[in-house]
Amino acid sequence: MNGDALSRLATLLEEDLQATNQAIVARMDSPVALIPQLAAHLVAAGGKRLRPLLTLAAAKLCGYEGVRQIKLAACVEFIHTATLLHDDVVDESVLRRGYASANAVFGNKASVLVGDFLFARAFQLMVEDGSLEVLRILSQAAATIAEGEVLQLTTQNDLATTEQKYFDVIRGKTAALFAAACEVGGVIAARPASECAALAQFGMDLGMAFQLVDDALDYSADEAELGKTVGDDFREGKLTYPVLLAIAAATPSEREFWTRTVEQGNQTQADLATALALIQKHGAGFQTIARAEKFVTSAVSALEIFAPSSMRDALVEVAQFTTARRF
Amino acid sequence: MNGDALSRLATLLEEDLQATNQAIVARMDSPVALIPQLAAHLVAAGGKRLRPLLTLAAAKLCGYEGVRQIKLAACVEFIHTATLLHDDVVDESVLRRGYASANAVFGNKASVLVGDFLFARAFQLMVEDGSLEVLRILSQAAATIAEGEVLQLTTQNDLATTEQKYFDVIRGKTAALFAAACEVGGVIAARPASECAALAQFGMDLGMAFQLVDDALDYSADEAELGKTVGDDFREGKLTYPVLLAIAAATPSEREFWTRTVEQGNQTQADLATALALIQKHGAGFQTIARAEKFVTSAVSALEIFAPSSMRDALVEVAQFTTARRF
Repeated sequence: MNGDALSRLATLLEEDLQATNQAIVARMDSPVALIPQLAAHLVAAGGKRLRPLLTLAAAKLCGYEGVRQIKLAACVEFIHTATLLHDDVVDESVLRRGYASANAVFGNKASVLVGDFLFARAFQLMVEDGSLEVLRILSQAAATIAEGEVLQLTTQNDLATTEQKYFDVIRGKTAALFAAACEVGGVIAARPASECAALAQFGMDLGMAFQLVDDALDYSADEAELGKTVGDDFREGKLTYPVLLAIAAATPSEREFWTRTVEQGNQTQADLATALALIQKHGAGFQTIARAEKFVTSAVSALEIFAPSSMRDALVEVAQFTTARRF
Repeated sequence: MNGDALSRLATLLEEDLQATNQAIVARMDSPVALIPQLAAHLVAAGGKRLRPLLTLAAAKLCGYEGVRQIKLAACVEFIHTATLLHDDVVDESVLRRGYASANAVFGNKASVLVGDFLFARAFQLMVEDGSLEVLRILSQAAATIAEGEVLQLTTQNDLATTEQKYFDVIRGKTAALFAAACEVGGVIAARPASECAALAQFGMDLGMAFQLVDDALDYSADEAELGKTVGDDFREGKLTYPVLLAIAAATPSEREFWTRTVEQGNQTQADLATALALIQKHGAGFQTIARAEKFVTSAVSALEIFAPSSMRDALVEVAQFTTARRF
């Protein structure tokens, strides 16, 4: 996400965002000290707050003037953070291969349990809000996220993964929460179903674009030169869009390379550079961004149902700059 | 839980239980094949269905004649199963010490994600049911469970753990769901708050007794002779009630033993036998069961608010036989 576009959105929503941050800190508290400690590590530390901003923006776009968006934005962030914590859990096999674990400080079990707490707390916040429609949207999103994550796990190391499966994975693991975050903004504003659906569509398309760009950046030679972390997906044997494209265009010897490194997980230090070179050779990064652009176009057109406003402009801008982001 | 008392309860509720089992199998389905596969491993396989039986029994006790208890009993079982799956997650440190992981077949990550799916699905079932009060009770229970599990994690290997902390742990990790499972039966029957509170109290006390007995059985020499698994808590360095009692009564050399084995996690093959002998020497198993008996007495008296009925008798019997169970 382009930092400037997102900063402008955050500035437009500054008061709401501050209130959301306060709600986040207040509601992740617990008499069990490790919970706020570990949660603070991820939640309070800041982050871009992209998903809660979408809820705040959607509510504002719909002319909503109450305060329900604050609690629900916090709730969306809790669901996101729970997902991050559970994503940090590493498998025995990964440990055996000697990768550093993202949850090294606290351990697998604490990540899982604190994630569970945040997830439960998110539902408590929704119950306090009191809308069964919001509960329906976000419990459905939570189930879809889990399905996407499990599907990703089962396609890992599988070179036969189809584009369709890849899109199912990212729709679940990323786009579903973007969609739900936007939709609830319309629901609390009591907008007609067509507008709520348009917001969901905007979020879904934005989420798809966002994840495609994320997956492209993980194979970006530029980023590697800038000293940023690339190659996580490669090391984990994830069949992301750039890899699927490079495999589809592979020569026989290139296919052997992908089979060894991604399917069999048999990698040496030098393999990442080769992977980056192959992605570049076949223009797979470029094509991935191009695919993301299509989702951005769809996202922007979904917002046409709304009258022009500074909030609509800001959301359009956030979408358009998705493909320009470098982090 | 005594098998006979529980079987009698299951027989009284046979139709509802069958419908619940069907709902469980139907609603854990997903287009992502690994989800039903892994869930079946735990959910469909059967188990005692103790928690859903409590929901069914509480609804019946309250004279409820609708069908909402089925979906909510399935929901309670999903929350329980999600907890089991997340309990299976092992820490890197545990792996390093060479213990076999309970989730060896599928891996940490799959356990976490399928647990997340079941948890989300449980909330979808509640949303379908449509009662915000039920949602409030079960989302609160879910948060309390997570808090109890995290507290257990932070007291692990800590010989300074107090009885109070131990009771906080088991209230969270076990009794809170028993209480919620019972309470929702009264809520859907639209019984007065006093009766719903009595059901919650019954479940809470029953859950406390149940966990105390569980913790006693893990140090039962009888069970060891019968070839059943004992000593899991010892190996994991959990400060359960029997150990707390044995530590409180320890001689200086016994205290050194507990410091080495439980606090420092430095155990040899022969240590479990010593631990069992020390528990026996100080009557810690016996005292744990005696403490459980007190909770049973409290559980039974909580039901006095209800008119005598075969369902009340069955619930009283289940409670009374908690301390006689051998599995």
